Amino acid sequence: MRYVSTLTVALTMLLSTAAARAADPLPSWNDGPTKKSIIDFVARVTKEGSPDFVPPPERVATFDNDGTLWAEQPMYFQLLFALHRVGVLAPQHPEWREKEPFASLLKGDVKGALAGGEPAIVQIIMQTHAGMTTAEFERLVKDWMATARHPTKKVLLTDMVYQPMLELMAYLRANGFKTFIVSGGGIEFMRPWTEKVYGVPPEQVVGSSIKTKFEMKDGKPVLMRLPEINFIDDKTGKPVGINEHIGRRPIAAFGNSDGDREMLEYTAGGAGARYCLLVHHDDADREFAYGAASKIGTFSDELMSEARGREWTVVSMKNDWNRIFPATAPPPDNAGR
Amino acid sequence: MRYVSTLTVALTMLLSTAAARAADPLPSWNDGPTKKSIIDFVARVTKEGSPDFVPPPERVATFDNDGTLWAEQPMYFQLLFALHRVGVLAPQHPEWREKEPFASLLKGDVKGALAGGEPAIVQIIMQTHAGMTTAEFERLVKDWMATARHPTKKVLLTDMVYQPMLELMAYLRANGFKTFIVSGGGIEFMRPWTEKVYGVPPEQVVGSSIKTKFEMKDGKPVLMRLPEINFIDDKTGKPVGINEHIGRRPIAAFGNSDGDREMLEYTAGGAGARYCLLVHHDDADREFAYGAASKIGTFSDELMSEARGREWTVVSMKNDWNRIFPATAPPPDNAGR
Repeated sequence: MRYVSTLTVALTMLLSTAAARAADPLPSWNDGPTKKSIIDFVARVTKEGSPDFVPPPERVATFDNDGTLWAEQPMYFQLLFALHRVGVLAPQHPEWREKEPFASLLKGDVKGALAGGEPAIVQIIMQTHAGMTTAEFERLVKDWMATARHPTKKVLLTDMVYQPMLELMAYLRANGFKTFIVSGGGIEFMRPWTEKVYGVPPEQVVGSSIKTKFEMKDGKPVLMRLPEINFIDDKTGKPVGINEHIGRRPIAAFGNSDGDREMLEYTAGGAGARYCLLVHHDDADREFAYGAASKIGTFSDELMSEARGREWTVVSMKNDWNRIFPATAPPPDNAGR
Repeated sequence: MRYVSTLTVALTMLLSTAAARAADPLPSWNDGPTKKSIIDFVARVTKEGSPDFVPPPERVATFDNDGTLWAEQPMYFQLLFALHRVGVLAPQHPEWREKEPFASLLKGDVKGALAGGEPAIVQIIMQTHAGMTTAEFERLVKDWMATARHPTKKVLLTDMVYQPMLELMAYLRANGFKTFIVSGGGIEFMRPWTEKVYGVPPEQVVGSSIKTKFEMKDGKPVLMRLPEINFIDDKTGKPVGINEHIGRRPIAAFGNSDGDREMLEYTAGGAGARYCLLVHHDDADREFAYGAASKIGTFSDELMSEARGREWTVVSMKNDWNRIFPATAPPPDNAGR
């Protein structure tokens, strides 16, 4: 009896190992050169004794967020949060009724408000993201994110993450990689939910930030958020942010726009096996289709040429992904798009 | 036969678990209230179901470096590196012979050079730490650290780390903590060796920094180190650096000077069980004895009062530690001190 039980355990273990091996780690990726390139890269860097072997501590993979891990249309979701905050705060700011970009926003004219370009956006961010403690800001983001829905697709924003990218991050982690987010978005806007949504803890999130100041408030030590830019984690800022926060050059990087170019160049520029990938939004039916003409998340023709020339992988969302959003998300309603 | 073998495996496992439990995780700490306070804290936060239980991802412990993890007398070891670099670079800088603080340094008058205070130190740092790529700087630090010895004790600087603190870090990690260094020292001066010496990977090191700039050098993407301060990770800067890099409030913090005060206050100010500890250098025979009178690493009377009032643990190196440096280090030669 004991013998049988031991044998049963041994057999079960063998079988489940085989099953695990046989299971596809990237089921939402269609078979083809894109999926194969990912699996080949992981096999090369994890095979001990191979010339491309990379020890686990050096298996650093960095992911852009907006447009790479979740959607970014019709505008960055952080901007939706800022617009929501403008509405909440408006009663305390009667002067906004006469002052741009707030006056347009309060009339519902988002396009008019953003016509002021970056200075307008900075003003909106400073009014809605500063002047409170880091803990208070975290609470605002958490509460908003729990119920915030996409303006046209109507699903929760946290359901607008890309299922194939979730699988890719999990697959890399299962192979000894540490996954980091390196985004132009606000570091403190992302941290309250990245662990739950992506499995990426706060200390592995790199992003743009405003300055903070240590002070005693009602006898309690807090960090106050100041209306002053600290760091912009975009374009040439991405390698700078990576070096400052991670201190190692990534061996794999994932992006979707010109803002990720330098991160990919920096990653590709290291010695040994490297993997660079760009997500191309070419699926108007299931998500959005946009490129250089878009006001945000540009994927310029120059970037496409560079990607082709350097043999970076370019994902066609339409052809490479058999599913865009997680199965738990309700089917998107495209009617309003 | 199969039965015996299963039983043997089970017994061996039980016995080695018991042995592991019985082994003292902090052998270089003398029994007493200090050691007991550490072990009690770890037991409280790791016991599932207890009101003080903290889930592993939130078990963040931050450690100052100079004077907390390794020695800092007669001057910060990073300054020894800078002085070494001044000597190496002097032939390319004939103007230094007439220009302070370099003129004094080149005559061997360190005290005279440092009489210029912080501006003099900043000048020395910028001349020796900037104007190269991050990879070149890393190489310089690694090469120097491999052979650099203490000016009077003559042992390798990497052997002047505190064995009790190495044990403490390993003990915390074995209990699900993530250990971070949060130092006023240069982040890129520490990262090349903290993983080997302390078991702390580069992405868990927070420190002061100068600005870097992404550029193409000979067709390769690099980060150039600029002669401009980016961030000073000291005093009120420590909670700011912790929030920026880690994004969570630590539940345990370890320091040794007034520069660590705000880090300890910030740590203690969170909800739930907290542990704060200050190392007091009171062992002139085995290490150094210094306090407020010292030019560096001050532990003021005010800090001591605050520590007592807040019930932070104060380590007496003389009484609480039965060993200061690792057994692998040759016995220190105190003759020259």
